[in-house]
Amino acid sequence: MGLFLLNLPLQKSAKVRYTERVAKGGIWMEEKDFLQEIKEIEMIKEALGLLEWDAQTGMPEAASDFRGEVSGYLAGQAFSRSIGPKIKEAITTLKPENLSEVGQEVLTFVKEEYDLNKAIPADRYEAFMKETSKAHTAWAKARASQNFDDFKGSLSAIISYLKEFIPLWQKDEATAYDVLLNQYEPGMTVEKLDAIFGEVKDGIMALRARLAEGTAPQTDFLSRKVTKAQQKRFAETVVKELGYDFERGRLDDTIHPFMLDLNRNDARITTRWNEHDFSMAIFGIMHEAGHGMYEQNIDPKYDHTPLSTGTSMGIHESQSLFNEIIIGSNQAFWRKQYPFFQECTEGTFDDIDFDTFYRGLKQTRASLIRIEADSLTYPLHIIIRYELEKEIFNGDVTVEELPTRWNDKYEEYLGIRPENDLEGILQDVHWSGGSFGYFPSYALGYMYAAQLLHAMEETVDVDAVLASQDYSPIKNWLTEHIHRYGASKKPNWLIQEATGEALNPQYLLDYLKKVYYTAYQIND
Amino acid sequence: MGLFLLNLPLQKSAKVRYTERVAKGGIWMEEKDFLQEIKEIEMIKEALGLLEWDAQTGMPEAASDFRGEVSGYLAGQAFSRSIGPKIKEAITTLKPENLSEVGQEVLTFVKEEYDLNKAIPADRYEAFMKETSKAHTAWAKARASQNFDDFKGSLSAIISYLKEFIPLWQKDEATAYDVLLNQYEPGMTVEKLDAIFGEVKDGIMALRARLAEGTAPQTDFLSRKVTKAQQKRFAETVVKELGYDFERGRLDDTIHPFMLDLNRNDARITTRWNEHDFSMAIFGIMHEAGHGMYEQNIDPKYDHTPLSTGTSMGIHESQSLFNEIIIGSNQAFWRKQYPFFQECTEGTFDDIDFDTFYRGLKQTRASLIRIEADSLTYPLHIIIRYELEKEIFNGDVTVEELPTRWNDKYEEYLGIRPENDLEGILQDVHWSGGSFGYFPSYALGYMYAAQLLHAMEETVDVDAVLASQDYSPIKNWLTEHIHRYGASKKPNWLIQEATGEALNPQYLLDYLKKVYYTAYQIND
Repeated sequence: MGLFLLNLPLQKSAKVRYTERVAKGGIWMEEKDFLQEIKEIEMIKEALGLLEWDAQTGMPEAASDFRGEVSGYLAGQAFSRSIGPKIKEAITTLKPENLSEVGQEVLTFVKEEYDLNKAIPADRYEAFMKETSKAHTAWAKARASQNFDDFKGSLSAIISYLKEFIPLWQKDEATAYDVLLNQYEPGMTVEKLDAIFGEVKDGIMALRARLAEGTAPQTDFLSRKVTKAQQKRFAETVVKELGYDFERGRLDDTIHPFMLDLNRNDARITTRWNEHDFSMAIFGIMHEAGHGMYEQNIDPKYDHTPLSTGTSMGIHESQSLFNEIIIGSNQAFWRKQYPFFQECTEGTFDDIDFDTFYRGLKQTRASLIRIEADSLTYPLHIIIRYELEKEIFNGDVTVEELPTRWNDKYEEYLGIRPENDLEGILQDVHWSGGSFGYFPSYALGYMYAAQLLHAMEETVDVDAVLASQDYSPIKNWLTEHIHRYGASKKPNWLIQEATGEALNPQYLLDYLKKVYYTAYQIND
Repeated sequence: MGLFLLNLPLQKSAKVRYTERVAKGGIWMEEKDFLQEIKEIEMIKEALGLLEWDAQTGMPEAASDFRGEVSGYLAGQAFSRSIGPKIKEAITTLKPENLSEVGQEVLTFVKEEYDLNKAIPADRYEAFMKETSKAHTAWAKARASQNFDDFKGSLSAIISYLKEFIPLWQKDEATAYDVLLNQYEPGMTVEKLDAIFGEVKDGIMALRARLAEGTAPQTDFLSRKVTKAQQKRFAETVVKELGYDFERGRLDDTIHPFMLDLNRNDARITTRWNEHDFSMAIFGIMHEAGHGMYEQNIDPKYDHTPLSTGTSMGIHESQSLFNEIIIGSNQAFWRKQYPFFQECTEGTFDDIDFDTFYRGLKQTRASLIRIEADSLTYPLHIIIRYELEKEIFNGDVTVEELPTRWNDKYEEYLGIRPENDLEGILQDVHWSGGSFGYFPSYALGYMYAAQLLHAMEETVDVDAVLASQDYSPIKNWLTEHIHRYGASKKPNWLIQEATGEALNPQYLLDYLKKVYYTAYQIND
C-alpha cells in the first residue's frame, strides 16, 4: 500500500517555462504566480509528509498530542491555501492557451481538486486531521490491548467527519460511498465494483475449489528462522536490482508498512520483520519498493507540482503488486534468485530444492491478516473491507457492530474467524487515518498489474529478463507507460494506452490460474 | 552540544489562564490572540526541527535541494510571522499588568527577540537558511574528500550573510563578534571572555605541566573492541538511570551528535559509534542526554511558548557536561557502574581492576578532534575556535587562511598539528549551520557545571548518591534550580540563584585539579 496523508491531492509546483499575463479587474495573475502558490502549498505538504513518516517510524508516543497539533495546524494551512484567493483567481482567470504545457496540466488538475476541496470549511478539515492523529494513537493502544473498544470512539468520530464531508463533496455520484471511492480511483462506482468484485470472487472461489484437488506444496520450511539481517540483505539487494534507488529513498521499520514520498528524490519505504516468516518482509519490501519506484521515476518536469505523484491509489497499487506478486511469483525470477537467497540464509535451505521452494511460496490458505494473505485469497480480504465500508456509508451498520460483522464475513468467505480484534478489525491502519474507499484500490491494482504484464509481454520477454542479470527492461517499460506521467493522466487513460483496452478482470483470473495450477501441479 | 536550527529563539504558546482586553485604535488584542500567534509560529518551528533532525539522521542526500527549499520556506514563514503585525501589535499594546504570569514572561521574552529579529528582512533570512542547508551538504562532501576547498565557498557565503546581519542586530555591543556571542549567551562579551579564557588557559597549562610529573594512567585497554550493541546497552541503561526519559525521546545515529527538542515530550539525542573507542559514544550519549533532560523537565506551564526550551547555550551545555564530565568523571559513579560495564562488555575487561579502569578514563593527552578531547584539554579546543571566530568577525582573516590558522593554533596550544582538513577545520558541523559565537558556550557550560556541583554538594551528598541505586536527588536538584525555568530566566539569574554567586571560573580549575591529581597520583 502507499500511505497518503490527506484526502487532498499532493500539491507541488512546476518549473516556469513561459510567462503569460492575463488581466482581471486590473490584477495580473501570471503562470509563475500560480505555480509559486502551488509550490508553497506543496512544500507545506512535504513537511507534513515527514511529520507523518516520523509519527509512524519512531516518534515517542508521549509526543502525539504535540504532533497532532502541529500536523493539524499545517494541514489546515495547506488546505486553506488550496482553496484560497490565489488559487481561485488562477482557476477563474488563467486561460489554458496562454500557459506552458505543464502549466496547463497543473491547472486542469488543480481545477478538479479545487471543487472537491472548496467544499470543506478549513476549521472542520483541521479538526478532522487532529482527530486522525489522535486516532492513530488510539488504534495503536487498541492493538496493544487487543480490544476494539479502545479505538471505537476515535473511529466513530472519523466516520462522523466523513459523513459530514460527503454531501459537501458529492457531485453526480450515485451513493455516499461512491464519493469516497472516487477520491482514490477516479471514475470508480459501487455499481462497477459490485460487478467486477462479483466476477473476481466467483473466479477465485472456483479456482480454490479446483486447487483442493491438486497437490498442496510443502511449506514447513517457510517458518525456518531467517534473521532480520539475512532477510534485509536479500530484500535490499533484490529491490535494488528491480530498480528501487536507495540513494533516493530509505528503508525503516514500522508497525504497518507503507511508502511515503516527500519528493521524487526521497521516496521512503518501511517494513516489519518476522524471523519465522521471511516472506512477510521480503515480499513486503518488494511491494513498497514498487510504490517507491513509481514516485522516483516521475518526469522531473513535474517537480514541485501536484502532478509529481502517482495518479491514483489503484495505479499506485498496480506498481507495488507488479513487484510483489507478478515478479515475486515468477518462476524464472526465483530460479535465478534462489541461489542468492540460499547464500543470504547461510545454509538454512540447503536441503530444499528449487521446485519445492518455489511451489512452497505459492501455497494458498485462508488467513486472517490481509498483509500476510497469499496472492490468491488476497482479493477476498479486500472484498470484505469493501462490503463493510459500503455498509458504513451506504447502509446502517453501527461502529459497535463492526467487529462482529468483520468476523462473520471472514467466516463466510474464508472459513476462518478471528479470535480477537487484533487479528480482526484492528489489523489495518487505514481507518485510523480516515482512509475509507481506499481498500478497493488494492484489488484494482492487482487487476491492472496482471493486465500490464499481458501487454508488456508483447514486446518484452519477461521470463527471459527475470532470468538475466539485467532487470531494467521491465522497469523501463513501466516507467515509459506509467511512472513518468505522474498524475498528469487518469487511470483509464493510462491503462488504455498501455494495454490497448479498458480494465478487464479476466487477465487476473487467467494469471492466477496459471500460477496456482503450477504450484498445485494441476494440468488443465 | 545542543543543535538549534535558527538563530531565532524557539517560539511556543502558553495555556491561556486569563483574558485581558486592551484597546488600540478600535482593535482589541487579547492575551489569547497573542499566545495563539506565538503558538502557531512555534508549531512551524517544530516542523522545522523535524526536517533538520531528519536531514542529519538519514535523509537521502539526493533530496537535499528539495529539503533546502522546504526548510527555507518554512523558516521564512516563521521569521516573517515573528516580526509580523500581530506580534508588533502585541508588544506595543499589551500591558504586563493585564496579563497572566506566563503571559508576562512570554511578552518580555518576545519583546527582546522582536528587536533582534525585526532587523533582518525576511527574504534575506530565508536565503540564509537555504544557504545553510546547502552548506551542510557541502560540509559533508568536504569531509568525504578531506578537502576544505569543497566547503569554503559555502562557508564564505554564510559568513557574508552574518556580516550583513550583524550591523542590523547590533545595539550597544562593543564589537561585531559580541553581537553573535550575545545570541547564545546573553550578556557575554569579548572583553569578559578574553579575561575568563585567559585565566582558564593559564590554569590548564599549569595543571598540564604539573601532571607531566605524575604517573600516567594505563590506557591501552580503552581501545579494546566493544560492539555497538554492548556500548548501547550500557549507555542507554546509564542515561535512563540518570533521568533521561526514553518514553519522551529517542536515540539515533548521526555524523555529528546533537540533541534536538521538538517539544518537552520529544527531546531526541543522537550519537556516533566507534567499536575501538567505547568512551566516545558512552560519554557522548551521557552528554546529549543531559541536554535532553533539561528539555524534558521544563515546567509544562510553558508548553507552546518560546520559554519551553533552555535559556542559553551555556546553561544548556552546563547540563550536558554535568552528565558527561561531572558525573562521568566521578569515582563513586564508576565504582558502582564498573561491574555493569564489565557485564555489558562480556568479559573484555575482566583483567582490568577498577582503579586502573577509572584512572584510564581520565588520561589527558593533546588531541585533534574536539568531541574526542579529554576533559582537561577540551577548553583549549574551545579557546582556539573562539579566537578564530573573533578574527573572522573582528579581524581580517580570510576564509582561505582559516585551515592554516586552525592548524597553527593547534600546534601552539596543544603541540600537535592536523594532517588534513577532516581532522582540522572540517570536524565541526556548527559553521555550516551559521552558528558562530556558539563554541564559547561549551566552555561557559563547563564552568557553570563545576560551580553547580559545588553548590549542589551543600545539600546533596553527590558521591553517596552516585554510589546508590537512586540517582534522582541529582536530577531533582537540577530540575529544581535549572530545568523547570526553561527560558523564563537569564543565565546570570539562574547561576546566582542556584549557587549564591556569579560565574567564577575558579571552581572549574579546582575541580580539574582534584580529578586529575587523582588520576595521575599526585599528592598536593
